[in-house]
Amino acid sequence: MSKQETVKIVEVGPRDGLQNETGIITTADKAKLIYALVSSGITNIEITSFVSPKWIPQLADGLELAQILNLPNFVTTTALVPNLKGYESAKLAHLPEISLFMSATQSHSKKNINKSIEEALILIKELTQIAQADQKFIRCYISCAFFCPYEGYVDFANVIKLIIKLVEMGIDEISIGDTIGYATPKNVKDLLKPLGTMLDTKKIAMHFHDTYGMALSNVYASLEENIRIFDSSIGGMGGCPYAPGASGNLASEDLVYLLHGLGFNTGINIDKLVEAGSLAQTIIKKKLPSKYLQASLAKCLNVQEIK
Amino acid sequence: MSKQETVKIVEVGPRDGLQNETGIITTADKAKLIYALVSSGITNIEITSFVSPKWIPQLADGLELAQILNLPNFVTTTALVPNLKGYESAKLAHLPEISLFMSATQSHSKKNINKSIEEALILIKELTQIAQADQKFIRCYISCAFFCPYEGYVDFANVIKLIIKLVEMGIDEISIGDTIGYATPKNVKDLLKPLGTMLDTKKIAMHFHDTYGMALSNVYASLEENIRIFDSSIGGMGGCPYAPGASGNLASEDLVYLLHGLGFNTGINIDKLVEAGSLAQTIIKKKLPSKYLQASLAKCLNVQEIK
Repeated sequence: MSKQETVKIVEVGPRDGLQNETGIITTADKAKLIYALVSSGITNIEITSFVSPKWIPQLADGLELAQILNLPNFVTTTALVPNLKGYESAKLAHLPEISLFMSATQSHSKKNINKSIEEALILIKELTQIAQADQKFIRCYISCAFFCPYEGYVDFANVIKLIIKLVEMGIDEISIGDTIGYATPKNVKDLLKPLGTMLDTKKIAMHFHDTYGMALSNVYASLEENIRIFDSSIGGMGGCPYAPGASGNLASEDLVYLLHGLGFNTGINIDKLVEAGSLAQTIIKKKLPSKYLQASLAKCLNVQEIK
Repeated sequence: MSKQETVKIVEVGPRDGLQNETGIITTADKAKLIYALVSSGITNIEITSFVSPKWIPQLADGLELAQILNLPNFVTTTALVPNLKGYESAKLAHLPEISLFMSATQSHSKKNINKSIEEALILIKELTQIAQADQKFIRCYISCAFFCPYEGYVDFANVIKLIIKLVEMGIDEISIGDTIGYATPKNVKDLLKPLGTMLDTKKIAMHFHDTYGMALSNVYASLEENIRIFDSSIGGMGGCPYAPGASGNLASEDLVYLLHGLGFNTGINIDKLVEAGSLAQTIIKKKLPSKYLQASLAKCLNVQEIK
C-alpha cells in the first residue's frame, strides 16, 4: 500500500445509525450532528432515507432535514431512495447523490423489500435512468454480499455478476455490504481478488458491520485489494438488525485511526471526529461502541504529544 | 499466509483479566473458568500472578488455585512471577512455565516495578538461570513496546535490542505488548520487519490491547510478518489500566474467529469458547466486550449451517 493515498469515507451514521435508534431524534439535533461531522472534515454523508415513514418513523423528517441544512459545496449529501416517490423527495431536497439498494440473495431481497432480485434490478435501472438525466451521482448498496441471515453462504460468482450488471447500468459507486458482519478477511479477499481483475476498484466501496468484531480487519484486507472507499458510522451508531444488543456499523473514529495509522489521507481531523462522536452520544443518550471514541473520552493517554 | 498452519493462543484472562476486576472472585469460580477454557481446547493459560497480595488482592489465592487445578498434561499453565519469592510459589505450584515481565521504557519500568530497565534485566537474568535449572519454559513480557503512557513513542531500535538480549539470556518466548493499545498495523510492521531478519519469529508472541480498536488488525499485520503466537483474554476481560471504562485485552473469541476465518488451526472449538465467555460474564457479573461473544449470545444468525 503506497503512502499518502486518499481514502474516501462515506459517513452513514445520520441514516444507518439513527434508523436503528428507538427514540425519535429532533431534526435540529440531526442537523447539529451533521454540522459536527462536516466540521471534522467528513465530505460524504448519507443524511437520511426517503422510505415511507411507516417503515422508518425515525427518518420521517428527511426532506425537512435536507432543506434546512446549509452545507459547503464540497460536501456531498446522499439519501436512501427506495422508489420513484423517494427519488422525487431527493430531487426536491436538491441532493447531488442518491443511494439505491438491493440484496445479493433472493430471501433477503424478499424479506427486505418484498421484491425478487430481478424485480429490484428493474426498479434500479429505472431510477438510474431518471437520476442520470438529472445528473445525480448514483450509489447502490448490495446487502448480504457475503452471508445471508436466511440462506447462509452467498455465491460470490452471483455477487460479481450483480456488481458488473450495476456498473453496466451506469451506477457510479457500488457499496458491498457484509450486512450480518460475519465475513472474515479471507472472504473479503475471495470476493475482491476476482472482482479486481474485472472492473475498476475505484467504483467499489465496502460497507462492513462489526457484529462479530471483524470490520477493521476486513477494511485492512480490502485496502490490500486496492479498495479506497469505506462506509462507516459515527461512534459505531446503529445496531445489528438481526440481533438486538449486538453491535452493527463500523465506527468512523476507529476506521479513521486505522487509515491514518497506515499513512492514508482522509481529510478528517480525528479529534474533531471524536467531538462529533461525543455529540452523537449526547443526542441519542447512549454510550456508543467506538473504541477510539471511548478511549479518547476516557483520556487513556497521558502523553499529549502522540499524534 | 499458508493454510492449516497452527497458531498458539495464550489465554491470559484468569490473570490479566481478573486482576483488573474490582470484585473478589472465589477460587472455585476461577477454577471453573479455567476448566471451561480447557474444555474449549485452550492449551496455554496464564492462571494467576505470584505478586504480593498487597499489590493485587484479586490474585492472592494464586498458589491455592494452582494446587486445586487438576488439568490434563497437554495443558500448559503459567503465572506471572515478579521476583524470587514469586518464583518459589510457582515452583511449589508445579507450574511448567513462568512468565517474567519488564517494560520497554524507563518511566513505565520505574512506575510499574520501581526498577530501571537495567535493574529489571539483572533480576530477569537471575530468575531465568534458576528457572532453567528447574527446566521451566520461560516467557517474558515486554510492556509498552510501541507507545508509553509517560514517554510517548518508543524507540523500536531499543525494543529490538532488549528482545535480542532476552533471547540471548535463554528466554523461550517473548511477548511484545502494546500496553496502551495505541499501535496500528504500520507500527506493528515497522517493529516486526527488522526483528524478523534478526531472530526466529517462533520465539515471539504479540500481546495486543484493543483500547483504540486496533487489536485484530494488528494481529492480521503480525500474521503477515510470520508471527504465530498471540495472547488474548476470554471475552476481552480486563480493562485499560490507564483509563477506567475503556477496553483492554483482545478478546479470545474474536481472535479465534479471525484465525479460523483465515484458515489457521488453533485447536479451539469456538462454540465452547463462547460458553467459557458466557461463564466469565456470569462470574464477574458484567457484560464483556467481545463482539463475537455478544453476537453469538444474541443469536445474530438464523442460519445454523454457517460454520
